[in-house]
Amino acid sequence: MTVSEFLLGRLNELNVNNLFGIPGDYVLPFFDELIDKKTGVSHVNSRNELNATYSADGYSRINGFGAVAVTFGVGSLSTVNAVAGAYADNSPLVVICGAPVRSVSKTIGTKLLHHLVDQDFDTSMKVMENITLRTLRVSSTETAAAEIDALLIDSFIQKKPVYLEIPFDLQQAELDNYPTTPLNINKKVTNTVTLNNAVDQITKLIEKSESISSLVGPLLQRNNMILTTDKVISHINACVGTVFTGKISHFEDHPNAVGFYQGKVSEDYTNKMIENADLNITFGVQHTEFDTGVFSDSIGVNQDAVHILNDCVIINGEYYFDVYLKDILPVLAEKVQVLTPKKLEIDASARKFVFERRDKFAPTDNDLTIDRMYVQFANFMNSGDILVGDTGGYINASQAGLKKDIQIHGCGNWGSLGAGFGMSIGATFAHSEDSTDKGQVISITGDGAFLMSAQELSTIIEHKLDATLIILDNSGYGAERQIHPGKERSYNDFLPWKYEQLAETFGGEDGVTTSSYVAKTENDLDKIFTELRGKKGVNVVRVKLDPWDSASFNVKFSEALQH
Amino acid sequence: MTVSEFLLGRLNELNVNNLFGIPGDYVLPFFDELIDKKTGVSHVNSRNELNATYSADGYSRINGFGAVAVTFGVGSLSTVNAVAGAYADNSPLVVICGAPVRSVSKTIGTKLLHHLVDQDFDTSMKVMENITLRTLRVSSTETAAAEIDALLIDSFIQKKPVYLEIPFDLQQAELDNYPTTPLNINKKVTNTVTLNNAVDQITKLIEKSESISSLVGPLLQRNNMILTTDKVISHINACVGTVFTGKISHFEDHPNAVGFYQGKVSEDYTNKMIENADLNITFGVQHTEFDTGVFSDSIGVNQDAVHILNDCVIINGEYYFDVYLKDILPVLAEKVQVLTPKKLEIDASARKFVFERRDKFAPTDNDLTIDRMYVQFANFMNSGDILVGDTGGYINASQAGLKKDIQIHGCGNWGSLGAGFGMSIGATFAHSEDSTDKGQVISITGDGAFLMSAQELSTIIEHKLDATLIILDNSGYGAERQIHPGKERSYNDFLPWKYEQLAETFGGEDGVTTSSYVAKTENDLDKIFTELRGKKGVNVVRVKLDPWDSASFNVKFSEALQH
Repeated sequence: MTVSEFLLGRLNELNVNNLFGIPGDYVLPFFDELIDKKTGVSHVNSRNELNATYSADGYSRINGFGAVAVTFGVGSLSTVNAVAGAYADNSPLVVICGAPVRSVSKTIGTKLLHHLVDQDFDTSMKVMENITLRTLRVSSTETAAAEIDALLIDSFIQKKPVYLEIPFDLQQAELDNYPTTPLNINKKVTNTVTLNNAVDQITKLIEKSESISSLVGPLLQRNNMILTTDKVISHINACVGTVFTGKISHFEDHPNAVGFYQGKVSEDYTNKMIENADLNITFGVQHTEFDTGVFSDSIGVNQDAVHILNDCVIINGEYYFDVYLKDILPVLAEKVQVLTPKKLEIDASARKFVFERRDKFAPTDNDLTIDRMYVQFANFMNSGDILVGDTGGYINASQAGLKKDIQIHGCGNWGSLGAGFGMSIGATFAHSEDSTDKGQVISITGDGAFLMSAQELSTIIEHKLDATLIILDNSGYGAERQIHPGKERSYNDFLPWKYEQLAETFGGEDGVTTSSYVAKTENDLDKIFTELRGKKGVNVVRVKLDPWDSASFNVKFSEALQH
Repeated sequence: MTVSEFLLGRLNELNVNNLFGIPGDYVLPFFDELIDKKTGVSHVNSRNELNATYSADGYSRINGFGAVAVTFGVGSLSTVNAVAGAYADNSPLVVICGAPVRSVSKTIGTKLLHHLVDQDFDTSMKVMENITLRTLRVSSTETAAAEIDALLIDSFIQKKPVYLEIPFDLQQAELDNYPTTPLNINKKVTNTVTLNNAVDQITKLIEKSESISSLVGPLLQRNNMILTTDKVISHINACVGTVFTGKISHFEDHPNAVGFYQGKVSEDYTNKMIENADLNITFGVQHTEFDTGVFSDSIGVNQDAVHILNDCVIINGEYYFDVYLKDILPVLAEKVQVLTPKKLEIDASARKFVFERRDKFAPTDNDLTIDRMYVQFANFMNSGDILVGDTGGYINASQAGLKKDIQIHGCGNWGSLGAGFGMSIGATFAHSEDSTDKGQVISITGDGAFLMSAQELSTIIEHKLDATLIILDNSGYGAERQIHPGKERSYNDFLPWKYEQLAETFGGEDGVTTSSYVAKTENDLDKIFTELRGKKGVNVVRVKLDPWDSASFNVKFSEALQH
């Protein structure tokens, strides 16, 4: 059992069946192991390291964990923005980096090796310390297995990325010892006494409240706790809102749903229902700028407030540390069963999304507008689909009311252009492993974001996967035209590509492995959406929009965001 | 005079007429200033931040300084690999990053802003400290001008990248005070006493030696000291070799030229002439892994050795600190005029490059091979051309004997795939400013490297510039197939794109602003090269190669590089 083989086996236990990566001289023995050993992990040859890491992030959102492998310096330092994004958006993954042989990294002197900044062998480690949960350089065949296990478990439990450097001479080295038991992802991390105290306090607050509101966020999805949370919410009969950084469609099609909450940017009914309840409980929601409508919320101001975060609980400002969401929610779901449900009246006509799929939508020959296009889009999405939005595409798509069992992912907190499209590639690989063959991965991205990681489209074409990519072509950075308006600014503009030729240029066989479409009018898009249902291969839709068009709701959001 | 206006004016003094950058919310006021104020600096809207920084690096190689502007976190952290490359390859540039307003970055608490890792406003600063000369966050309108001046001067003199963060509220703020004198790039940094001691020692060694060899490297080009060095070498009559990380064609067409030196990887004649002289002087050469043929050199072992580096001189192991290359070379050039030139016999028939342009090349209908293709290529290149090679393309192109006055650039020391092509974009902008209209920028890149930054091709198409791109299509990472051989490894393979469709797909008008070609045989390429001479617009040449073909010399180089 070599170091790499052991690592790959552990990754496979974490549901990693595809690993994204770019071979490079210092990491080739790891890639040899990846190809030669039967660990259940396959290699996806991404087009660059940043995109590979975005892909690992997107893969992690669906499968629970992601992995990317790169070479020293030139590789590891290209992943940085995506690693920081995985941190900010709570996506566990490991960046595996091949490093020079151990003896070389001890020969600091006048020798300037390639891939080095000055003669510092620790540059990548030092950079990564700022953007990961933690870093590890494997140092021996004796300690490697235990160190790797501890690193992966931490990443998985804390839902944060980690960085793992393996010297060249250790990548194919035989381990002196290694555990034969499965990776202990159920390692005890919660303080049971504190957990019970927290549960007692929460149940007391529930009992004394006449009305309860709740918000559900991304950490429920990361911890696979959506149904457990539903048990809590349904039993106590709290109303429930979804949030920007992790919109969970399960709770938008729920009887207690009051819509999408985003502080004062929310629809009035949603805001009132969430903020006027006697008690608000947030489940796996972080108090981010976007989730709170640029801190325009009043959560906890005139109400009791409970925040169940990944690793702690906050009850009316008091912290209960070392209480993990994954551990407290099952206990809470059990405890609340004896409580009396609250009265709750939902005004279904008042509860609405900016883009309502139930709106009757009769397509016309008019040019597409963002306001109407997203209604069309909300109706197009089906249960089982996975929607990955890139920045602008994500901001708008998050305002659409979605059917149950649609996953929606994006770079909600970090907000990096190009990340969403890169993530959709990883999500496509993860979804391709799903034998139920239900739904498809649909990526929606502004053109500016798409350009940043465009080459990655060729990876899913090469692997003959099925996915749909919707490119919103407004010849520039549309969101930016709103958050910093004034006269038309040339810095937001660029020459559009012929997106309808891209899939074929990137190696696809037009009409066989790829199909491309252009929509200018509502009827164009209607026809395309009809054709796309169940369509295999890689489908690219170029949606032509007026560069100065913007969703009406976005004016409110953009104003809030102006600095 | 605002902070941004002042900064842009200073950049313009450093010969920056084009600034590469991506607008993003935290940096928009800077972009407003860039557009509105007449500072002589124009904005190039790159396709992503990594490519923008590669472009700034390539621009710096030609014009002496480069600049890139990005937004907070998502932008700055995407530049990291290119910044490290600029550091490793001595390319001065500034990364300008917009940051949150000063008041916000003091409100650390429960507010999680977007583009932040946890609540740390210093992430980018801390990351950049590892890969730049130094970092600066502008803190007031009182100190900004002096701080910016000091930063830019340091970067320019040390030939290293720097990082500059400007809070949102300071980008358009009026300076309280600012100097009206030009940027003092002639700031005294050299210790004159030490300089004179060093010159005395060097002239003594020159006097006592019967034969002298010299090596010339990239720091001569960075410091504009090629002709001054020629004065030294020509007068003392030293033989001269060029090196990998900064191949200077001026010294390949020199009467004293002995070819391209790379330790034991060199041709025998070159190695002997360089290593057997009584004294060897290196001018602006770093003792890197690639320059020394993976440390297979014997420089200074059985000979006296002088190393003139950017900021110090080493004479037989003794350091003379604070003696800058730009200051010592003019003095040395003067001092050696009184010395008697050495006897030197160059055996022109023994001096040869791996790819000799003087070889008669009669193209055939045979498929292209790398060994013959680079001979064809060496003959194609003309004086005035700027050759930018990406990793594999650079490794091979460096072995070609070039006419005088061809610049060749690449990511020679850092060795990042995709960097060379990105740099060629910046070089194309710099060259477009040259009113003499001599030569063109020719980029040669392997397909694996090209994919990494491919979208940047559309930037020069959009700006209607003239350039030639040669893509070596061997459907994979060809160099890697050599350095880590064995059975065919799938991780080095990928599906080729239809590169001949790319320029048009990226928005070009086929036959008007862009032209595309495919070469499979020597006659194909011969015809294309004939057509390309003086051709305007963006020209893309897809060169089809056997995936298992490799330059014969490369076997030696790759073996040396195996870990």
